[in-house]
Amino acid sequence: MKINKPIVLALAGLVLFHASTLLAQTPIDLAAARATDPNTLGWMVGTPPPPDKSIRFEDGSFYRFPQWRWSFSHWRELRPTVAVERGSWPAIPFVEKIDSSLDQVTFVPMGGTTAMTWADSLVANYTDGIMVLHKGRIVYERYFGALTAERPHIGFSVTKSFFGTLAAMLVAEGKLDPSAQVRKYLPELADSGFGDATVAQVMDMTTAIDFVENYTGESPTMDRYRYATGFAIRPAGYTGPTSILAMLPTIGKKGTHGTEFHYRTPNVDVIGWLIARVTGKSPAAVLSERIWQRMGTVDDGYMQVDEIGTPLTGSALNGRLVDFARFGEMMRQGGRINTVQVVPKAVVADITRGGSREAFVAGGYPTLPGWSYHNFWWVSHDDHGVYMARGIHGQAIYIDPKAEMVIARFASHPLAANVNLDPTSLPAYRAAAEWLMKQ
Amino acid sequence: MKINKPIVLALAGLVLFHASTLLAQTPIDLAAARATDPNTLGWMVGTPPPPDKSIRFEDGSFYRFPQWRWSFSHWRELRPTVAVERGSWPAIPFVEKIDSSLDQVTFVPMGGTTAMTWADSLVANYTDGIMVLHKGRIVYERYFGALTAERPHIGFSVTKSFFGTLAAMLVAEGKLDPSAQVRKYLPELADSGFGDATVAQVMDMTTAIDFVENYTGESPTMDRYRYATGFAIRPAGYTGPTSILAMLPTIGKKGTHGTEFHYRTPNVDVIGWLIARVTGKSPAAVLSERIWQRMGTVDDGYMQVDEIGTPLTGSALNGRLVDFARFGEMMRQGGRINTVQVVPKAVVADITRGGSREAFVAGGYPTLPGWSYHNFWWVSHDDHGVYMARGIHGQAIYIDPKAEMVIARFASHPLAANVNLDPTSLPAYRAAAEWLMKQ
Repeated sequence: MKINKPIVLALAGLVLFHASTLLAQTPIDLAAARATDPNTLGWMVGTPPPPDKSIRFEDGSFYRFPQWRWSFSHWRELRPTVAVERGSWPAIPFVEKIDSSLDQVTFVPMGGTTAMTWADSLVANYTDGIMVLHKGRIVYERYFGALTAERPHIGFSVTKSFFGTLAAMLVAEGKLDPSAQVRKYLPELADSGFGDATVAQVMDMTTAIDFVENYTGESPTMDRYRYATGFAIRPAGYTGPTSILAMLPTIGKKGTHGTEFHYRTPNVDVIGWLIARVTGKSPAAVLSERIWQRMGTVDDGYMQVDEIGTPLTGSALNGRLVDFARFGEMMRQGGRINTVQVVPKAVVADITRGGSREAFVAGGYPTLPGWSYHNFWWVSHDDHGVYMARGIHGQAIYIDPKAEMVIARFASHPLAANVNLDPTSLPAYRAAAEWLMKQ
Repeated sequence: MKINKPIVLALAGLVLFHASTLLAQTPIDLAAARATDPNTLGWMVGTPPPPDKSIRFEDGSFYRFPQWRWSFSHWRELRPTVAVERGSWPAIPFVEKIDSSLDQVTFVPMGGTTAMTWADSLVANYTDGIMVLHKGRIVYERYFGALTAERPHIGFSVTKSFFGTLAAMLVAEGKLDPSAQVRKYLPELADSGFGDATVAQVMDMTTAIDFVENYTGESPTMDRYRYATGFAIRPAGYTGPTSILAMLPTIGKKGTHGTEFHYRTPNVDVIGWLIARVTGKSPAAVLSERIWQRMGTVDDGYMQVDEIGTPLTGSALNGRLVDFARFGEMMRQGGRINTVQVVPKAVVADITRGGSREAFVAGGYPTLPGWSYHNFWWVSHDDHGVYMARGIHGQAIYIDPKAEMVIARFASHPLAANVNLDPTSLPAYRAAAEWLMKQ
C-alpha cells in the first residue's frame, strides 16, 4: 500500500482539528476530578472496609472508576506478580532542586483558547504522581490520592517501552535478527498471524493481526486476551486459553504486515516470548539484570503474571515514580546513567529516530500528528526531539532532549485512551520545557 | 476442667513413644528425597513450561507434592500479596564465619538407634534453605532446589510468631488488654465462638472454637477457611464467605475457653484483626513499622492477602531466610539487634516463660513433650531454654539461648505436620548447639 504523505498528514491534521474542537467543547471540571480522590471517598478504609467501599479483582470492581484511583497503586494486592529485583547495586538518589513555581506556569490546552496553570493540569488529568527532572535533578515532585513516593504504581503500556528497549539491545548484540520472521524463533506461532511477520514489524506494531484493541467497546479478541492473561475474571464455563502463551497462537492474520501501525498489545507479548526464547530467562529477570539493577533504582519493580507465571510484558510493570523517571533520564543521557552505560548509545539513537510516520497515520491518533512508533516508543519528530512511553489512563514518561527534561507521570484518569489527557498534558509539558530552558 | 499433671505428662510420653516407634520403623529414603529436587524435575522450566510441568493456583497443582517444592519459593507468582516494607533503614548484614564441618556432626533421630549426620538430616527434611547463627554470626548457610539466598520463601505458621510478638507489644503498651474479651474490641465477633474469649486465650490458642485444623483429611470448617482466604480455589457455586473477616464471625463455640490448647489458625486472624483495630493500620504495615524495618532486614517481606486485601496473619509471611533468622536473633538478644531495641525485653521474657504445659497436652504433639504454647510461640521448657516459631512442611525458627544459637529453616516436606520432621530436626539442632558450645 503506497501512502501519499502530504495527504495523510493533512488528514491527520483534520482529525486533530475535530478532536480538539470536541475537547474544547467539553469543560474540564476540576472540582469533579478532585472529588474522586480515593482517600476522600474512603475506598478500602476500615477493617474490613464497608462492602460498598471494598475493591476486589473477583467482582470486577478493581477496574471500575473511581475505584481504580486506588487499584493502580495497589496492583499486587489484587493479582499475582513477580519481582523485578533491584539486586545489590547501590541505589542512586537524584539531587533535588525543587522549584514549585512551575505550578504557576500556564499553557493553552490543545483545541482550547483559555490558559490553564500547570497545577490545574495535574488535577484535570487525575494525576496520581508526577516528577520533573531537569538536567538530571528533581525540580518538581507531587503525589495525590492513593500514591506515595514509596508506593509502586502500575505503568500499563509504559511497560512496552522497557521491553522494546530490551529487544533492541538483543538486536544490537546480534541475538535477535530484526529481519527474521517470528516463526524462526517461535515455531509455536508459525500458523498464527505473527508467523510470517518480521521481528522488526512486531516491534513497530505494523503486524496485520486479527485483533481489536478496545478498552471500552465490544471486542471478542480483546476479551479473550483479558481472560487469558488474568486482567479480567473469566465468565462461567470459559473454555478459552488460560495463559498468554496459549492465547497468542490463536490470533489470526488480517491484511499485510509492515504497512500500517495499529496499536495491539499482543505484539509486545510476542516480544516478551522472543526475549525469553533467546535468553533462556524470564523477561522479568532480563529486565532486572539488564536495566532495572544497573540504573540505580531505589526499589524493586514488579510485574503481573498470568496463571503459569508469565510476566505480562505489554502492560504490567509496576514501580516507583522515581524509578520510571530514572528510566527516562537514562534514555535522555544516551543510555547512560551514574557512570553506567545501561543501553548502547546506538540503540537509543535508533529509538529516537522513530519509525514510519506514514504507517503511524493508520493508527488514528489525533493528538499526535506527525508522530511515529518504533520499538514500542512514541516519537514526536518535533523540534525538541520529544519521545514518550505511554500507558492507558495517563501513565507516561516524556523525554525532551533539547530541554534536558524528563517527566514521569502516573494517573488514574476515568478514560483509558490518552487522547483524553494529551490536550492538557502535551502542551503543559512543552510549557514546562520552555520555562526550564529559561531558568 | 482440672488436669492431673503427672498423668498428663505420662500420657504425652506414651504418645511420644508410639510415634517414635512408628517413625523408627519408617526408613528415611534420602535418595527419594533428593529425587524431588524441583530443578531436577524441571518444574516450571521452559517458555511455556510443558503442561505436565506447569504449576498453577487455579488447578490446585501449586499445593501438591512435589510441585510445592517450587511453589513455596514462588508464592507471589501464585497469589496476591502485600509488601512488608523494609523502608529506608540500613540493611545490616551478619558477619559470616562459616564452618561446614557441622555437616559431619551426628545425632540419633527421635525413636531411632542409628546415628545420622547433620548433612543427611537436611535431605531427610526436604530442606529448601537453612541458616545457623552462633553468637550472632552466620556459621552455616545452605540452599537447595528452588530457593536461593535472594528469594523469599513462604513461612506458613512461622508468621504467627511475628504477629503474636506484635500483639504482645501492644499489650505491653496498654493498647490491648489481655484480660478483655474479644467482643470488646471486635463487636463483629460478639456472637461468634471468639466473642467471650479473652485476648490472652486467643494468643495462647486456648479458645474453644468449633474449628478443626486438618491439612489432610475432611474438615468442612478448614475448607471454608481455605476458600475464604484464597488458599484454595473455590468449588463451583460456592456461596460461603469470600474474605477472612467475613469468615471469622461464622466460627462457633465448642467447649470452654482457657482449658485446652488446640492449634487453630483463625485465632491468629483474630489477633491480626485486633492489631488492625487498635492501631488503625494494616497488620502488614504494623509488622513493617515495628519489627521488619527496625531489625536491619536486607529485603522486603510480603504477605498473601485475601480478596479484599487483608493480610493473612496466620500463615502467609514470605521473606528471605536471613531475615527470618534475624527475627530469631533479635529475640535471642532480648528483643535487641544492631543497637535497636525492637521488642521490649519484658515481652521477650514473657514469651520465653511459655504458656500452660497442662493445656498444651490436649493439642497432641508427641514430639514436643513438656512444651507449651504462648503468644503464638512454641516453648520447650528444656535446659537450654529453647523456643520456636513453626510452620507446616518444615518452616522453623529455632532459638537456643544457652547455646547462643539461632537456626532458621525453610523446607518443602511432603507432609504438612512437623511431627514428621521433628525426629530428624530437633535432635539435630540440639547436637549442633552442643557442638557449637564446644567451639
